Amino acid sequence: MSEDKIPTLQDVLSARPHVYRYLSRTPLYHYPTLSRLIGAEVWIKHENHQPIGAFKVRGGLNLAANLSPQARAAGLFTASTGNHGQSIAFAARAYGMQATIAVPEGANPGKVAAMQGLGAQVLFHGRDFDTAREWIQTMAAERQGVFVGPTDTPLICGVATYALEILEDLPDVEVIIVPVGAGSGVCGVSIVAKSINPKIEVIAVQSEAAPAMQLSWQRGMMVQAKMETFAEGIATRVPFANTQAIMRRYLDDFVLVSDAAIQEAILLLLRHTHNLAEGAGAAATAAAVQLAGRLAGKKVVLVLSGGNLALGQLQMILAKGQP
Amino acid sequence: MSEDKIPTLQDVLSARPHVYRYLSRTPLYHYPTLSRLIGAEVWIKHENHQPIGAFKVRGGLNLAANLSPQARAAGLFTASTGNHGQSIAFAARAYGMQATIAVPEGANPGKVAAMQGLGAQVLFHGRDFDTAREWIQTMAAERQGVFVGPTDTPLICGVATYALEILEDLPDVEVIIVPVGAGSGVCGVSIVAKSINPKIEVIAVQSEAAPAMQLSWQRGMMVQAKMETFAEGIATRVPFANTQAIMRRYLDDFVLVSDAAIQEAILLLLRHTHNLAEGAGAAATAAAVQLAGRLAGKKVVLVLSGGNLALGQLQMILAKGQP
Repeated sequence: MSEDKIPTLQDVLSARPHVYRYLSRTPLYHYPTLSRLIGAEVWIKHENHQPIGAFKVRGGLNLAANLSPQARAAGLFTASTGNHGQSIAFAARAYGMQATIAVPEGANPGKVAAMQGLGAQVLFHGRDFDTAREWIQTMAAERQGVFVGPTDTPLICGVATYALEILEDLPDVEVIIVPVGAGSGVCGVSIVAKSINPKIEVIAVQSEAAPAMQLSWQRGMMVQAKMETFAEGIATRVPFANTQAIMRRYLDDFVLVSDAAIQEAILLLLRHTHNLAEGAGAAATAAAVQLAGRLAGKKVVLVLSGGNLALGQLQMILAKGQP
Repeated sequence: MSEDKIPTLQDVLSARPHVYRYLSRTPLYHYPTLSRLIGAEVWIKHENHQPIGAFKVRGGLNLAANLSPQARAAGLFTASTGNHGQSIAFAARAYGMQATIAVPEGANPGKVAAMQGLGAQVLFHGRDFDTAREWIQTMAAERQGVFVGPTDTPLICGVATYALEILEDLPDVEVIIVPVGAGSGVCGVSIVAKSINPKIEVIAVQSEAAPAMQLSWQRGMMVQAKMETFAEGIATRVPFANTQAIMRRYLDDFVLVSDAAIQEAILLLLRHTHNLAEGAGAAATAAAVQLAGRLAGKKVVLVLSGGNLALGQLQMILAKGQP
C-alpha cells in the first residue's frame, strides 16, 4: 500500500454505521487501584466486552458491509489464530455469507469452537498463522472466493472505531498503548488519534518472543523474526507492509515486553479489574508497568484488545504465582 | 413494606435517567457453544461489564439521585460483602457524598480495595454481613447519617433497569434466571418482566449452603438459615421482608444449587464466554445446567450479576478441575 492510500478519519467515520448496526460502544473505565500501582491515571478500553471477546469484530463487519453482492455470494476465505477468524465468522453470519477459515494446528480450542459456533468452516493447516494463510489464499483463488487478509483496509477502518470512542470518552487522553499482531488495531488508533490531536502519544507493544513487527518498524524494512510467544493474538512471524507504512507515518514508539511480564499483567488485570485478558489483551498493561516512570501522572489508555484466554493457559499462569 | 408499596414499572422508568447519567447499557450476548451444552438458547446479561463489575451500581446511583441535599450532606452509611458497598461508594463519589461502609472481617480484598479506591471509608466488623449491618446501622443513627439498607426501594428500581434492557434486546425471552442475595436483583427483574409479559418465567437461585431467602419464600415466612457458601454475593443469613413480599407476588420458582455446581459454572463461563464470574454471578448458569431438561429449546437469559471473584478463589477453583 502506498502512503497516499492510508485511510483517513473520514474512512473511519464511514465505518461507524456498519459497526454500530451490530455492536454497541465498549466501555472505557478508570481503575483507581491499578492507577495507583502504575503511578498514572490508567483507563482500560474494554474490547474484551465485544460479543466475540475481541476488537476485531468491528473490522469484519465493516468489510462485509462494503462487499458487492457478487463477492458476498462467493464467500469469504481467511486465516487466523482465532480472533480475526471469529470476526469474519461473525460478519459472515450477519450478512448470510459462507466463511472458510484456516487456523494453525494447535489453535486455541475456545476460539475454534466459537468460530464453528458462528457457522464458519474451520480447517487446520500448518504450524503457524503465516503457513495457514498462504494455504487458504491458494484455496480461495481456486474456488473464486474472496480472500480476506488480516490487514485489509476495511478492517483497519472498522477497528479504528474503538479509537474514536476513546477520544469521545476521554478527550484529554495523553497516551494510548496498543498491542500489535498484524497491526490493524494500532493503525486504527494512530489514524484517529493523530488526525484529532497529534500530541496524543501512540505506543505499540509486542512480545520480545515474537518481535517481527517491532523490528520491521524500527529498521524501516520488512524483517521476519522468531515467533515463540504464548500469546497467539500477537504471534506474527511475517510483517505486513500496509500496516508498517501507517505505523512509520504515525507511531511514536514501539516497545517489547517479555512473555513473563504479559502473564503478570494478566494477573494484574484479574486482580484490579476482574476482567480476563488473553496474552495480547494484557500486553498494553505489561508495557505500562514497564514504562511506569515515563507515564507518571499522565492520562493513559491501555487497550484490552481481547479476552479469549484458553482455560489451560489461565491455570498455568495462576499456578506460576501472583503479583 | 406492604404489598401496595411494591415498585412499579413506572418507578423503574423513572430510575433510568439517573442510571444512564453515569452508566451505559450492558450487553446481552448469545453464546452458541454454551447453548448447545445446555440445550437451550442461552443469553448472558453481562452486568459484570459494569464499572464496579456488578449490577448493584445501578441501584446506588438511583438512590443517590433521589436524596435531599440535607441527606447528601449527612453522608451514607451501609454494610456490604462488597458489591453493594462498591455501588454506594461509586454513587457517593458521583454526588460528592461521604460513604462509610461496614464489611465483615475477611471480606473479599479486591472488593474492599475497590471501595477504598472510590473514596469510601471501609470499616471491618463482625463475622458476617448481618452482624456488620446491625453495627453500622447504630453508628449511622448516632452520627445522624443516612443508613442505606441493601433492599431499599430506590435500589430495587435502579437495578431493575437491567431487566428493561433485557426485554428491549430480547422481547421474546421465555425464562430469566437471577441469583439472589438480598433480593434486589430478582425483584427488579420480576417487576419488569411480569409487568410487560406475565408469561415470562422468572426463576431465582441461591446456594444450598445459604438458603435463607429460598426457604423464606418457599414457606411464606421469614426463616434464618445457615450461611456457608463461598459466594459472598449470595451469602444471606437473615432474609429481607420487602424483597420477600415482591418475590411472593411475582416469582415463578426458586431453586438451590450446590457450591460445587457454582464453581463448575465459573469454569463453564470462562471456557464458553471468557468472562470472569464471581460465585453469585455464576449461580444462574449453575441453575440452567441443573434445570436443562425443563429449559430445553427455550430462550433463556442468565444474569451474570457480577465478576468480582478473588484471585485466590479462582486459583482454587481452577485447581479443582475443569468441566
